Amino acid sequence: MRYLLAQINPTVGDLARNTAQILNSLERAKRQGCDLVVFPEMALTGYPPEDLLLLQDFQAEVDRCYGKILEACSGIAAILGTIRRNPSPHGKPLCNSALVIADQKVVGYYDKQLLPAYDVFDEVRYFAPGSVPFSFTYKNRKIGIVICEDLWEENAPQPYGTDPLLALQGASLDCLVQIAASPYHLEQPSLRKEVLSRASRALKSPLLACNQVGANDALIFDGRSCHFSSKGELIAEAGAFVEEDLVGDLEAARPKALFSRTWERDVIEALALGISDYFVKQGWKKALVGLSGGIDSALVLYLAVKALGSKQVQALFLPSRFTRDGSKKDSLALARNLEVACQTIDIEPLFCISLKTLYPHIPEAPFGVMEENLQSRIRSMLLMAYSNKTGHLLLNTGNKSELAMGYTTLYGDLCGAIGVIGDVKKTDIYALCAWIDQEEGGVFPATILSKEPSAELREGQKDRDTLPPYPLLDAVITRYIEEGLSPREIAEKERIDLATVTRLVAQIHRAEYKRRQAPFALRVSKKAFHRGRVCPIVQGFV
Amino acid sequence: MRYLLAQINPTVGDLARNTAQILNSLERAKRQGCDLVVFPEMALTGYPPEDLLLLQDFQAEVDRCYGKILEACSGIAAILGTIRRNPSPHGKPLCNSALVIADQKVVGYYDKQLLPAYDVFDEVRYFAPGSVPFSFTYKNRKIGIVICEDLWEENAPQPYGTDPLLALQGASLDCLVQIAASPYHLEQPSLRKEVLSRASRALKSPLLACNQVGANDALIFDGRSCHFSSKGELIAEAGAFVEEDLVGDLEAARPKALFSRTWERDVIEALALGISDYFVKQGWKKALVGLSGGIDSALVLYLAVKALGSKQVQALFLPSRFTRDGSKKDSLALARNLEVACQTIDIEPLFCISLKTLYPHIPEAPFGVMEENLQSRIRSMLLMAYSNKTGHLLLNTGNKSELAMGYTTLYGDLCGAIGVIGDVKKTDIYALCAWIDQEEGGVFPATILSKEPSAELREGQKDRDTLPPYPLLDAVITRYIEEGLSPREIAEKERIDLATVTRLVAQIHRAEYKRRQAPFALRVSKKAFHRGRVCPIVQGFV
Repeated sequence: MRYLLAQINPTVGDLARNTAQILNSLERAKRQGCDLVVFPEMALTGYPPEDLLLLQDFQAEVDRCYGKILEACSGIAAILGTIRRNPSPHGKPLCNSALVIADQKVVGYYDKQLLPAYDVFDEVRYFAPGSVPFSFTYKNRKIGIVICEDLWEENAPQPYGTDPLLALQGASLDCLVQIAASPYHLEQPSLRKEVLSRASRALKSPLLACNQVGANDALIFDGRSCHFSSKGELIAEAGAFVEEDLVGDLEAARPKALFSRTWERDVIEALALGISDYFVKQGWKKALVGLSGGIDSALVLYLAVKALGSKQVQALFLPSRFTRDGSKKDSLALARNLEVACQTIDIEPLFCISLKTLYPHIPEAPFGVMEENLQSRIRSMLLMAYSNKTGHLLLNTGNKSELAMGYTTLYGDLCGAIGVIGDVKKTDIYALCAWIDQEEGGVFPATILSKEPSAELREGQKDRDTLPPYPLLDAVITRYIEEGLSPREIAEKERIDLATVTRLVAQIHRAEYKRRQAPFALRVSKKAFHRGRVCPIVQGFV
Repeated sequence: MRYLLAQINPTVGDLARNTAQILNSLERAKRQGCDLVVFPEMALTGYPPEDLLLLQDFQAEVDRCYGKILEACSGIAAILGTIRRNPSPHGKPLCNSALVIADQKVVGYYDKQLLPAYDVFDEVRYFAPGSVPFSFTYKNRKIGIVICEDLWEENAPQPYGTDPLLALQGASLDCLVQIAASPYHLEQPSLRKEVLSRASRALKSPLLACNQVGANDALIFDGRSCHFSSKGELIAEAGAFVEEDLVGDLEAARPKALFSRTWERDVIEALALGISDYFVKQGWKKALVGLSGGIDSALVLYLAVKALGSKQVQALFLPSRFTRDGSKKDSLALARNLEVACQTIDIEPLFCISLKTLYPHIPEAPFGVMEENLQSRIRSMLLMAYSNKTGHLLLNTGNKSELAMGYTTLYGDLCGAIGVIGDVKKTDIYALCAWIDQEEGGVFPATILSKEPSAELREGQKDRDTLPPYPLLDAVITRYIEEGLSPREIAEKERIDLATVTRLVAQIHRAEYKRRQAPFALRVSKKAFHRGRVCPIVQGFV
């Protein structure tokens, strides 16, 4: 049996565009003589449609898309991720479903049984869980279906339901199909392969897994649709972060030669896709990046160029009296290396007039946070003005370590449409840039990679005046935010004194109010700020 | 049996402070000879603790609070809203529970059965549902317990479980106790009374309902704990938006004389409580409000004074070349009426230098959005600078109609720590101010109430140049956002042509990216932006 796994990139709620993509995939499958086409979870609606699912017209519009899709399925079977009305009068009004079509007829629906309600997932808000396993026979093959989380139970304690995999044991399947919208984070690809391999071994059945690709707001889907043998060996795999048809034979049994990708390549491709999908799906063409001469804005400029092309990117360099000469030199050299147009706008006149305007109205006090924040806010004002006048969309250049500590100015450097590296810790930013430097060379001026981090908002300022060393800070962020350890455990594992850990953790929570007004950060870690981490601003625990 | 309903105001996660409040209530109950003390849902943890619940130490710290509470319950029974470890190995690790104590001994736990997963509620993310009804006998009274949503099933389709009320029928209770953390919105108090009255009639039992009071971030709890007779008549009710002990006799049967409160009083007290609790719980003392001469900032200044006292509030008036003389006169008169210090800072010099700084770097184009936004951003920069230097916390003055349409400048007038009136539509702002004017008189200069709305960012600008008339716009917002009607239904009900409704609805969705970076808005409507409405930025449906 010849299959095509249609690893497509749907846009949330754009039913017409998604339907067109689905019809194109079906055409290609027929041209290639395939018997079975598999689409990702919620391929028709995109994932996650969030409260669009509550709109009265949404389900009706979804239903209207099926006519053409059914018609296109002549001589072929298709498994399509979609939503449907809950057939039971109890519970939430919708189900997260797989529609099965064979030879232009509806064979049936499978409703997802395990609805994730943790981290970035909120499916219980919208969906009623299914409770019935599903399989169908096509061209003499018995094909079972599960949807994403259905295979992940042990990682996600569920409030109800039983193990959907267990329910399929003894069904003597010729193939298990998993459709998924499984968002990327650093550890997800290897976790996912383990889960899929184990499932195919448990059922002693080949497994076809089709995953979405593309970015919707903060979530980035990496694709990597794949085929496992009944022995749990990887037979074939589609590319990462690209739309692709994975075509193959269900009976193929020769394991695929494994090639390893570095995490750096994954993160860079993920972030570039996050940028380009926001631009493509929202109709933007050109990006704006404020350069400081530091490594964060340098990486964001590189990613913007990778995502959009250098002609679509504009850089602004906005020096103040505290900007070192080297920062200007490095910024201009970086823009030159990346073939990006860069203008320099001195903020000194605005800084002077701001102080002159304010001083009669405020108490006399030494140069402090106000003066530092002012520079950052003048820069954001100029960047946004440039954006308003020229139609370049501003990218935010803040990193996860800064966001964690609130080492950022609200309405200043926290501005922008996308937090491009808002889920990347400072030490990882160094690693990514070193990797790029090694792969491509000649992108980053050497001094950008080696200089000591500074916000340059007052004379001789260094990040280390305010923050602990980044390796220590990032270790605490990893352990506390991403792994959920307690301060005591962190102190033990990382051999940091408990008082330091407790102080840093408290500072992370105190900065919550800033993160609440930050642009969304493209998610590449197990636990990003924003969507996956819901914390109160006002709280007395930490 | 004499009861005390302890309508307290817990702080999320501040276990020490909440425990102290609980101990004080128990003392007062004993002094007044009460037999039974009832605390609200999650009184010990505050509501909602969100992902603090996922912290490893949280449950252990909660458990540590019980010692003193048990000890204090000599000669008395207490029903305490708290959390506990899920006694079952399946499902989420915690339960939303009522701990029952009698004479210093733990009688047992009741676990909430219906966990809301809609609007602002996300309990399935954290809790496993209970499945067992609970009652206990104290001083010869058989007392049943439910928690909040347990009585609301018909309004909130649940993914599982049965009706907890039904399960108690036939139990011959002498009293049903409901503990709740039921947040306020305009329609909630009357809905809640219906639900409670119906439950007491269904069980033919008196009902004691104890609700939280106070604000945690955007959610405001109105209290209004109450006692219903077995005939469903209201016997006693605690105050709205205040901490209060409601002490009474379970056997009392004389219905309470109803007095009606206007919705205006409710909303004003809710918003003032939202401000003051943020300040008290976060340790802020002084507030800053930017005055424009319009009605929105006037209402926010009034609310700030009501919440904090006029000595704690500072106003800034920030005129540009487009500010009309009347705006200055009105702002200064308003500040005088409310006895608030007000300074005037002219933004003209900064506006001029901004344009001079930018013009060499941008294409020549007529006065437009850039120039308008610049003024708004200069104002926010000065307000934030003033805040940074003086420690006054900036309040946001945007309303819900503007937020809906994106008629607001990101990093400009969208700045501030709290969206004080971000869930109040423009037409309701007029109604609230008219009501205040009638009740108190002499607060608002008459011209503030009567002038036509204008952002005053260009010559002769009026809101109606850009927006439809507010009554029409607000009707669409009410129907679409708050009631969830489809554009077609709205067009029919409101007799507006469908094209206009569709255009406005599309504009609401297009402005999502601005709202994502807005301060949280105090919630007073059935459906506020932010917490209760989760919408994608990138989407192709609307």
